[in-house]
Amino acid sequence: MTISVPQALPVSLADIQQAHSRIREHIVHTPLMESETLNALLKARVLVKAETLQKTGAFKFRGACNRALQLSDAQRKGGIVAWSSGNHALAIAAVSNRLGIPATIIMPEDAPKAKIEGARYYGATVRLYDRIKEDRETIGAEIAAKNGAVIVPPYDDPYIMAGQGTVGLEIIQQASDAGAKLDAVIAACSGGGLIAGTAIAIKGTSPDTLVYASEPAGFDELARSLKSGQPESNPPGATSICDSLQVARPGKLTFEVNKALLAGSLVVTDDEVRQAMKAAYQHLKLVVEPGGAVPLAALLSGKLEVAGKTVAIVLSGGNVDTPVFIQALNA
Amino acid sequence: MTISVPQALPVSLADIQQAHSRIREHIVHTPLMESETLNALLKARVLVKAETLQKTGAFKFRGACNRALQLSDAQRKGGIVAWSSGNHALAIAAVSNRLGIPATIIMPEDAPKAKIEGARYYGATVRLYDRIKEDRETIGAEIAAKNGAVIVPPYDDPYIMAGQGTVGLEIIQQASDAGAKLDAVIAACSGGGLIAGTAIAIKGTSPDTLVYASEPAGFDELARSLKSGQPESNPPGATSICDSLQVARPGKLTFEVNKALLAGSLVVTDDEVRQAMKAAYQHLKLVVEPGGAVPLAALLSGKLEVAGKTVAIVLSGGNVDTPVFIQALNA
Repeated sequence: MTISVPQALPVSLADIQQAHSRIREHIVHTPLMESETLNALLKARVLVKAETLQKTGAFKFRGACNRALQLSDAQRKGGIVAWSSGNHALAIAAVSNRLGIPATIIMPEDAPKAKIEGARYYGATVRLYDRIKEDRETIGAEIAAKNGAVIVPPYDDPYIMAGQGTVGLEIIQQASDAGAKLDAVIAACSGGGLIAGTAIAIKGTSPDTLVYASEPAGFDELARSLKSGQPESNPPGATSICDSLQVARPGKLTFEVNKALLAGSLVVTDDEVRQAMKAAYQHLKLVVEPGGAVPLAALLSGKLEVAGKTVAIVLSGGNVDTPVFIQALNA
Repeated sequence: MTISVPQALPVSLADIQQAHSRIREHIVHTPLMESETLNALLKARVLVKAETLQKTGAFKFRGACNRALQLSDAQRKGGIVAWSSGNHALAIAAVSNRLGIPATIIMPEDAPKAKIEGARYYGATVRLYDRIKEDRETIGAEIAAKNGAVIVPPYDDPYIMAGQGTVGLEIIQQASDAGAKLDAVIAACSGGGLIAGTAIAIKGTSPDTLVYASEPAGFDELARSLKSGQPESNPPGATSICDSLQVARPGKLTFEVNKALLAGSLVVTDDEVRQAMKAAYQHLKLVVEPGGAVPLAALLSGKLEVAGKTVAIVLSGGNVDTPVFIQALNA
């Protein structure tokens, strides 16, 4: 399925290439790994982009870095405001620390303690809020107005999408270095910044490669939105061990891109995610968080026919609570 | 402590450079990682060579590859014989499989099941033996004579030492790329092939860098041998969770090198090793086996004063039984 990248999308291949030049010296150029035993298991050539080894343990550092580096001197003084219960918080805190920018992160009171401590470790001011009684966007807008700070959203932003897209750009280059021509690329989808940016990078440089999202059951808004052709919400009350992949509905800008470029979204269960975390531990010696393991879960559970093909997957993060990780090893 | 590499050692820097050219296309060029949180914890710049991500999950693939590639066509037909209960077995099996060489691995009946299955997975013939009643070297010599096979020892061999030394060569290059000048390098020691090869590579290119071995208590033969100036044996009956670091006494060739080049050997306890495995999981998102974690254990337990310095450590392998790994995460 050859799909060219339409001119009208909110982010272009050139935006991603420029983002890569901008952030290159700040990020980890993560390896594209390959395991003979994993290849044999899947009867395919599987190339694994280990973003678990990125700074702060997730791809989110790329987008945050691309945004922060484009703030003016005046904006830097006013600082950054962001809201997140997880990896975006850590990324914003670490980038701000690196560039000497004050940062305020709005986090739910019940966010994982390790994530709250992580943001504070990097010197960010953490404003905890009550998820029932307060609205984080209202709090964020108030802080931004008061401090003259810039709000950096987690995904629905061209700078963020371009930064995350550098994952795709590196995959294409590293696959070429390894003598591989990619039949397909799979990355996780929550708000959709990673998969949208990656799709633009892949489709812009290798139009014949199919790009798939992957999502946990219960939070498969993209799979359903791609089928209906319009943004669909997730049902209330759904649960998943993939704490980093839980949004209410697709992003506006990201869905515009994903609708135009994706071949589909592969939906996996919690049990399939645990098996994938265990396989990454065993075959790749990598610690992967539930949300980071969904593309591998999709392959191992046969959601995509890959026998004889070459497929790249993104393992997008490794920030997992230890009891959850141990549960996966015992699965 | 500036130490030049004596001319008379069994392996030269040139041997290691040639080994690197020879094996480069077959091995993983593993990353030299850095964690801001680990740096902060140790008040030092710590560069981590992740050989856990090497083929078969350990540095052993390098030496095995360097040896196998230098067999003549006639020798390749006769095949390879090796003995090992662990990572050398996997490395020989995988390299032989890759190069189409028949391999026989002599393994103790009580070796970890995963290692025996791993060697068989790569097509090696596994000959199990009784550790009490049989002698593996006698069995190996018989098979070699019968098949016309070449015996590939795990460490006391110039080809193997040169292959493992490519770890050191890559560290120097990658540290330089990262703008780091190394004050010290630490790698684990069992038979001593890795640390000897690494020391030659480091001292040959950066004479002012101190090179330390690291060993588990009870199997600290090198620490004691370096002190007495002659090869010392380990006491019988010692135990350690570091299954991959248990030899009776230093290798002959490796001790010759280590005696000439090392600044010392840092000895750690099982508890310190577990804390290091947990820290690698937490800060680096890497799965490290007990024996692979000893250099990090030495740093975290303060066996070397590193505040304000730049230190590279080798995490040499990631082949760990899951109950042992879980025990470390709960430590």
